[in-house]
Amino acid sequence: MPAVSSKGARMPESPIRKLVPFAEMAYKQKKTVYHLNIGQPDIKSPKIAMDAVAHHSLEILAYTRSEGSEPYREKIADYYKRNNIMVAAKDIVVTTGGSEALLFAMGTIADQGDEIIIPEPFYANYNGFATASGVTIVPVISKIENNFALPPISEFEKLITPKTKAILICNPGNPTGYLYSREELETLAAIVKKHDLFLIADEVYREFTYDGLKHVSILELEGMAENGIIIDSVSKRYSMCGARIGCFVSKNATVIQTALKFAQARLSPPTFAQIASEAALNTPQSYFDNVIEEYKERRDTLVKLLEEIPGVQVGHPKGAFYCIAQLPIKDSDAFAQWLLEVFDVDGETIMVAPAAGFYSSEGVGKNQIRIAYVLEKDSLIKAVNILKAALLEYQE
Amino acid sequence: MPAVSSKGARMPESPIRKLVPFAEMAYKQKKTVYHLNIGQPDIKSPKIAMDAVAHHSLEILAYTRSEGSEPYREKIADYYKRNNIMVAAKDIVVTTGGSEALLFAMGTIADQGDEIIIPEPFYANYNGFATASGVTIVPVISKIENNFALPPISEFEKLITPKTKAILICNPGNPTGYLYSREELETLAAIVKKHDLFLIADEVYREFTYDGLKHVSILELEGMAENGIIIDSVSKRYSMCGARIGCFVSKNATVIQTALKFAQARLSPPTFAQIASEAALNTPQSYFDNVIEEYKERRDTLVKLLEEIPGVQVGHPKGAFYCIAQLPIKDSDAFAQWLLEVFDVDGETIMVAPAAGFYSSEGVGKNQIRIAYVLEKDSLIKAVNILKAALLEYQE
Repeated sequence: MPAVSSKGARMPESPIRKLVPFAEMAYKQKKTVYHLNIGQPDIKSPKIAMDAVAHHSLEILAYTRSEGSEPYREKIADYYKRNNIMVAAKDIVVTTGGSEALLFAMGTIADQGDEIIIPEPFYANYNGFATASGVTIVPVISKIENNFALPPISEFEKLITPKTKAILICNPGNPTGYLYSREELETLAAIVKKHDLFLIADEVYREFTYDGLKHVSILELEGMAENGIIIDSVSKRYSMCGARIGCFVSKNATVIQTALKFAQARLSPPTFAQIASEAALNTPQSYFDNVIEEYKERRDTLVKLLEEIPGVQVGHPKGAFYCIAQLPIKDSDAFAQWLLEVFDVDGETIMVAPAAGFYSSEGVGKNQIRIAYVLEKDSLIKAVNILKAALLEYQE
Repeated sequence: MPAVSSKGARMPESPIRKLVPFAEMAYKQKKTVYHLNIGQPDIKSPKIAMDAVAHHSLEILAYTRSEGSEPYREKIADYYKRNNIMVAAKDIVVTTGGSEALLFAMGTIADQGDEIIIPEPFYANYNGFATASGVTIVPVISKIENNFALPPISEFEKLITPKTKAILICNPGNPTGYLYSREELETLAAIVKKHDLFLIADEVYREFTYDGLKHVSILELEGMAENGIIIDSVSKRYSMCGARIGCFVSKNATVIQTALKFAQARLSPPTFAQIASEAALNTPQSYFDNVIEEYKERRDTLVKLLEEIPGVQVGHPKGAFYCIAQLPIKDSDAFAQWLLEVFDVDGETIMVAPAAGFYSSEGVGKNQIRIAYVLEKDSLIKAVNILKAALLEYQE
């Protein structure tokens, strides 16, 4: 019997996926499960986008261009300009989700064994794309004590080797909700220029910032045309995770030309989803105002309640819709399983994402969980109360 | 300025893409261009599929499961059973096009530097996926003189090394239209079992067979449960290239589990396209009868006319909708450019795919072109007449 590849064997399983059998057990026990574990927003997609697909008049569902449909890319460029990011359609390759943009980025800049430095905790699937691409992730630990701020520049410079090709950040951050300041970004820009690296910024949560703070894109910074790559996606922006539309953006023509070769191999991004995504660009500002107001209220509720639980430490998110909570336990994997399998409060329990999967350093984050505040306020309050009761009862 | 990866630099450009600037020149000269170069069928997608999307009632465009929606996978399994392929939903991972299924297959079975043997000429994008995956393609040349039949088993065995992980075939074949017989498939099955390899079959053209011949799937053969992987797609079957839905099928549980890890990293296949693809499974047989009748007539017309041109040799396609024609020229790249840039008959010309891009052996296929018979009969006749006139006039 032929064996799978060592790469395939090493591909990480999603940190949440491991919990699925336990969630199924909870359902069998007729428990209500509040899902704090997933990044699937409960916010409605813009009606304008969903209607555009309903009103399609296609008779042949044909390929679009590999780089995405021309009118859509023109409109994305306009969107960026409105966001202070001066790019043109030619700087954009439409991808099948932010996921594919990440895969294109790794393929475009790194060979087998090359290294990418990433502040951790980071979006768990970076591990998967790195394994699939033969890239080694070199983590820089950012700490809950510092609210996950950018580690000092010296920490990065210590890690740069001849194999280092890029620094990758997620801003605002999944799973931390951290929003980098302009100064921090300038610091990163200086490092990458000094060492001739790329700076890849996953900016899919650009719109989701709170407390009057504004997101700064790496392509707003001076002199980043050759070094900067933006990863983007409609998934969170318009609550359209199932569209699978993102994009890869760079002012570096050779980088775009190379990413495009990866894009050509897979022919084109999905056509219906491009129709939805193009229409979504006409979403009125009021949609975002409402969504951000909603998330802000949830965040405030969540952080306040979590901080009231003895022994719990919380990273204060300034953006996105996640936060990392450090719990008075040793192993959040076991705790998350126990919550589903054993625990309940009046037939209700919660599902959380153990945070170890968001670190690549072995053994780090084992007492942390990621909470996505994608539930409405009342459910969120119930969920945190369940967590509080659980921590009182849990015996390691 | 940081450089792109050597992998990125080595990623092949699509053989057709190189012609795009010349096609644009032809348009500027107001020429009519008959496109014999692309695999985008002119056949309408099933109305039932397009209507299903128009009638969607989704308010949140959410992720589906990474392996594809459960009801869709159940229905795909039923489709396979109707085609004599006894698989269950658990043996299927829904992918973003056949493209992604190929990428998952290479990642699942091969590490950096591992080898996959492929009879050539083969679908040009196999080169791209192999480069992206760090896999080396080892070609076995199939010959137009033998109508691209399976090369003798000894040719394969000569090429098997400890790094060989699989044999990959496309059946019916793009770009040859070749349909493997059951005996040829049994031969391949025997080789892979003897040497503990995988047999990967790209069967996306399953329905398109002519002359009363029937497609045989590798998973219809005895004893292929551990070794067989099917690559599939709705793109050609339902003329839904823009859906970007395919699947990866294997009875080998470890293989499926591994492919699923690649699928989890990219979250899910596109949701709207799964709605279309699920509905497309209810397409009545009459749709295929009409489509196949149409393709058969086109094929007959095309092959007959090509064979009437002095010096032209044609592979006789038994399936799919491509054929390879060998021309009395030395360099079909230059010829294809000349057709667009210089030549016309009363303001009309043709665009063809130079065949060298379908070979990985250097220098092979340079006097061949691939013709896709995705034009209606009248246009096809005009196009072949233009080719005939061009060959008379062309000076190398």
